[in-house]
Amino acid sequence: VNQRSDANWQSCKSDSSGTSNSGESSKESSRCSTPVLDADRTDRLRDKMRRRIESGDRWFSLEFFPPRTTSGAVNLISRFDRMGSGGPLFIDVTWHPAGDPGSDKETSSMMIASTAVNYCGLESVLHLTCCNQTKDKITGHLNKAKRLGLKNIMALRGDPIGEDWVEEEGGFSYATDLVKHIRCEFDDYFDICIAGYPTGHPEAESYEVDLRHLKEKVDAGAHFIVTQLFFRAETFLKFVKDCRAIGITCPVLPGIFPIQGYHSLRQLVKLSKLEVPEEITQVIEPIKDNDAAIRSYGIHQAVEMCKILLSSGEVPGLHFYTLNREVATIEVLRLLGLWAEDPRRPLPWAISAHPKRKVEDVRPIFWASRPKSYIYRTQDWDDFPNGRWGNSASPAFGELTDYYLFYLKSKSPKEALLQMWGEELSSEESVYEVFTNYISGQANRSGHKVMCLPWNDDPLAPETNLLKDELEKVNHRGVLTINSQPNINGKASSDPIAGWGPAGGYVFQKAYLEFFTSSENVTALLQVLKKYEPRVNYHIVNVQGRNITNAPDMQPSAVTWGIFPGREIIQPTVVDPVSFMSWKDEAFALWIEQWAKLYEDESPSRMIIQYIHDNYFLVNLVDNDFPLDSCLWQVIEDMFQLLDAPPAPPDGPL
Amino acid sequence: VNQRSDANWQSCKSDSSGTSNSGESSKESSRCSTPVLDADRTDRLRDKMRRRIESGDRWFSLEFFPPRTTSGAVNLISRFDRMGSGGPLFIDVTWHPAGDPGSDKETSSMMIASTAVNYCGLESVLHLTCCNQTKDKITGHLNKAKRLGLKNIMALRGDPIGEDWVEEEGGFSYATDLVKHIRCEFDDYFDICIAGYPTGHPEAESYEVDLRHLKEKVDAGAHFIVTQLFFRAETFLKFVKDCRAIGITCPVLPGIFPIQGYHSLRQLVKLSKLEVPEEITQVIEPIKDNDAAIRSYGIHQAVEMCKILLSSGEVPGLHFYTLNREVATIEVLRLLGLWAEDPRRPLPWAISAHPKRKVEDVRPIFWASRPKSYIYRTQDWDDFPNGRWGNSASPAFGELTDYYLFYLKSKSPKEALLQMWGEELSSEESVYEVFTNYISGQANRSGHKVMCLPWNDDPLAPETNLLKDELEKVNHRGVLTINSQPNINGKASSDPIAGWGPAGGYVFQKAYLEFFTSSENVTALLQVLKKYEPRVNYHIVNVQGRNITNAPDMQPSAVTWGIFPGREIIQPTVVDPVSFMSWKDEAFALWIEQWAKLYEDESPSRMIIQYIHDNYFLVNLVDNDFPLDSCLWQVIEDMFQLLDAPPAPPDGPL
Repeated sequence: VNQRSDANWQSCKSDSSGTSNSGESSKESSRCSTPVLDADRTDRLRDKMRRRIESGDRWFSLEFFPPRTTSGAVNLISRFDRMGSGGPLFIDVTWHPAGDPGSDKETSSMMIASTAVNYCGLESVLHLTCCNQTKDKITGHLNKAKRLGLKNIMALRGDPIGEDWVEEEGGFSYATDLVKHIRCEFDDYFDICIAGYPTGHPEAESYEVDLRHLKEKVDAGAHFIVTQLFFRAETFLKFVKDCRAIGITCPVLPGIFPIQGYHSLRQLVKLSKLEVPEEITQVIEPIKDNDAAIRSYGIHQAVEMCKILLSSGEVPGLHFYTLNREVATIEVLRLLGLWAEDPRRPLPWAISAHPKRKVEDVRPIFWASRPKSYIYRTQDWDDFPNGRWGNSASPAFGELTDYYLFYLKSKSPKEALLQMWGEELSSEESVYEVFTNYISGQANRSGHKVMCLPWNDDPLAPETNLLKDELEKVNHRGVLTINSQPNINGKASSDPIAGWGPAGGYVFQKAYLEFFTSSENVTALLQVLKKYEPRVNYHIVNVQGRNITNAPDMQPSAVTWGIFPGREIIQPTVVDPVSFMSWKDEAFALWIEQWAKLYEDESPSRMIIQYIHDNYFLVNLVDNDFPLDSCLWQVIEDMFQLLDAPPAPPDGPL
Repeated sequence: VNQRSDANWQSCKSDSSGTSNSGESSKESSRCSTPVLDADRTDRLRDKMRRRIESGDRWFSLEFFPPRTTSGAVNLISRFDRMGSGGPLFIDVTWHPAGDPGSDKETSSMMIASTAVNYCGLESVLHLTCCNQTKDKITGHLNKAKRLGLKNIMALRGDPIGEDWVEEEGGFSYATDLVKHIRCEFDDYFDICIAGYPTGHPEAESYEVDLRHLKEKVDAGAHFIVTQLFFRAETFLKFVKDCRAIGITCPVLPGIFPIQGYHSLRQLVKLSKLEVPEEITQVIEPIKDNDAAIRSYGIHQAVEMCKILLSSGEVPGLHFYTLNREVATIEVLRLLGLWAEDPRRPLPWAISAHPKRKVEDVRPIFWASRPKSYIYRTQDWDDFPNGRWGNSASPAFGELTDYYLFYLKSKSPKEALLQMWGEELSSEESVYEVFTNYISGQANRSGHKVMCLPWNDDPLAPETNLLKDELEKVNHRGVLTINSQPNINGKASSDPIAGWGPAGGYVFQKAYLEFFTSSENVTALLQVLKKYEPRVNYHIVNVQGRNITNAPDMQPSAVTWGIFPGREIIQPTVVDPVSFMSWKDEAFALWIEQWAKLYEDESPSRMIIQYIHDNYFLVNLVDNDFPLDSCLWQVIEDMFQLLDAPPAPPDGPL
């Protein structure tokens, strides 16, 4: 219920490990020193699979390829957030040898996979091909992947460059060599996936020889198999049977390719040297110019095949070749009932999947709408707060100087931002109007809806609608809200809007409101706040860092917490006076970096934003009496009344 | 609201430091890494005094002397608990040179002061006299005091042994030397108190010379002065004025001696070489054989004098010579309004004042009625849980083999225990009766009230009366309860019964019930508990350590917590599966150590207790749905119903 879009989901499906492990446990049981909120967060991919197989919970995974352009990267990251919300067990990113895949470029395989892990919280598998690569080069890639928090590798041979296939001295000829190398150099660190070919590898001597190669790859240390796409369920089921027959026991995941268009199918078939079965060609050829019809058929065909696969009992999860598209895959998953429509959230904010952050369960509320920025600025921390903020968090936030990092960048181009925020500003009030329109969802004077603000890159979360009337009113008068949450006095952890965390718990919130406002308003506000001691805690700061607060001893204060069966209390969101000073720098800088710079130097529009940046205060208010209705709107109302009151006559009535 | 007596108070008076320090604070403010629940707990004595002086909060302190016998020590420790509840700023323990004062004997000054700090949570000052002592001996005492957690020393010369006063080579002649020595050897570690003589030290050349000596003692590094007793307010006020005139600026606390009897007054006057003023002798002499009248006059006289002192503005606190008695001092303090009638508790359990434990704010619920045993068993820990149990608590509990340590010992002698618990037991049911009588407060068959049990050394806490009917009922049927708390869904932290912690907060509890019961009952209980998944968490263990639980991953679970303005959440009580195994050993051992051993070897009574010890289970239950009425009584009721139900016919109805 925040003024933010919670791209914040992360399926909790497998939290069934909760309270059911009744039984005997001996005195020797060692204390679990970190409360495991969600086993999915600490387990390795192979363990997650094992648990899902044991519990009979089917999963799905999604394959993407790296984008060609920076704006493609921005879009793909947004897609990760959206498709992540459906609850994939993992995603994988293909290795694009021609695209400098191991580099720091925004479009490299390595960077895309790293962003998926660190900023989107997705369990991710990085592909890696070994042909035409030296061992050193490969080891370098693996070291870098490890450093970036990647834990899973899809080990592939890859296609040789040029026509002829030449075994290289000291290099790798087969994926088996790569698997062996990973195990040899990195022991058990990486979970390893390998490719299986339901109809045999096109270059293999025979289906049987190819199966034996697959067995060798597994024996070399792979953990699971993802197959090449296929068109008939029986193709896959025979393949699995043959795998089992020669002693391959690891999970074998079918690669599903929903047909999304005539030409993409042709191209893929050509590349993969597969044959499209008669029954499919017969349907497709007559409608080959009707894209919608083909897509519709593709979905139907994939769903029917998946149903057979799932009902066979041989398929614990489905792997989708998405071609970086959303619609068809999501539709197939919805029809199969695998898409998490109402995903449970382990915490109220979007977690990162970097192994270093696996115990992280507390964050300052300030970055609620900019979680990727928070992750970026804390990426060098060695420890993350676990259970409490005060004790273990490093106080040193990294600077945020590059506002154009692709995972932090606004999704909207400059033109769209100008349309939303005004081609030209005439006064501070025109800024108030932008905020008001963002809240109300109404179009502005030039007919454009304000879909984002520098502090909120997404439209208002549906929950914030509950606060809409109040927010609209105060923004209209120059209380420019950028973050808020209502009070919650014990809702079920399963509540579709407010809920998070394990089943059977209760979640709570203190009302919170954060806004920019003029120094004139702040003077009145401070007068008013005296009446609200000690109910309301406040921090008020301007860009120079002048800080006015009534927080005791600069301690952090919990504003969101949850009580769960058999656990310690989890308090994932705090107002921390010290980190507020770091947030203040970022929040003020966004006026300039994201808004003022849209306008010419010295233009009136730019000077208005600069004036606000230089003179306004950033205010946050917490209402400590969470069981009562929030008094924060009354605080603002009192402030307006004080401002509106005629000045008191100097000497009583005449 | 526990089945325990909360000797658990510790005044919060000075927590006014809370939310009032509004003002500017710069960006440099360092993060406070431990949430300071109660500044009194971390401050040094001199800082506490300074804060009280600044805030105008008057305090009192209490002087005791070490007891002569072990049972005297047991009684004095109980007195510390009772008198501590009135909120003294500190207590002090005199140095008794003839009583081996620095030894490990239960009656030594050192041990009594250490127990006051560690087990009673009292800020304590240990007296130390230096005459006839070598420097090494003194340093040894100081090192030991430091090791035991003592932080304050009253530096005295003491009376020379024998008639003649000889300055010793390399020894100490005056308290000034001792003050210098403490500062030289221990720098700033100890807060140092010295004695002042409002009418001059009897051995001093003159009042003026004595004042100059006092100034020297202060200049040597003392922090505050406590005066010898006196009988007229003006004596003290003149003395303070004279002190200020020669540049003594530290606090000067008047020593108050409420006259408690004719002979004790005579004796004291003789020892201290003081003169009793005419106006007092005139009143006392005529009533010298009427003890009650003298006590009554003593209270009146002390109150009147204290009122003058307090209203003078020169007296920030009063120091009472209690003579180890309670009534007169408490009465004087009550009449002055200084006795804390309804002391605020910083935490729901009685804290220890050992500096190592200043951050401790989480404990397992199991020792709720035996906090001194908990302190004893964790005294070797290097870290104490701060904010959470899971993260920082050492899992290694010390063994409790000596059940007769004076601070752990039952206050009742063996004869009284036999009267309460039965000279002779005839069956398990007679044990049930003891428990039932303890709960109901009714006299047993031989006419004695059961005032304690091996697991509860005090009568039921008044709060537990709320649960009395249910408790009585289940104990009668062999569910032998030893600990319980009702659920609380957000009561004010100022609530006189359930409240604890800083002002303006809310406290919560999950319902908890802990009991011994037969294995037959446990079998039925486990059947019943299936219906209460996941609402109820349970741990069930027998003396051999066979452990049945549904706790997830052996994690600790918070059962008491509080939400306060501007702070992180405090969760001071947990059910921790690992420490339950240590508690289990203690709880089972108490059957034997405290109860069975009252009876002859091989006697039927002893065998009954031994049978229970060997065959019963210790059970704890937590109801996770704290906003709802506790279901734990229903769980027990269901168990009884299952036990009462006729065995199901093997094959449905006829």
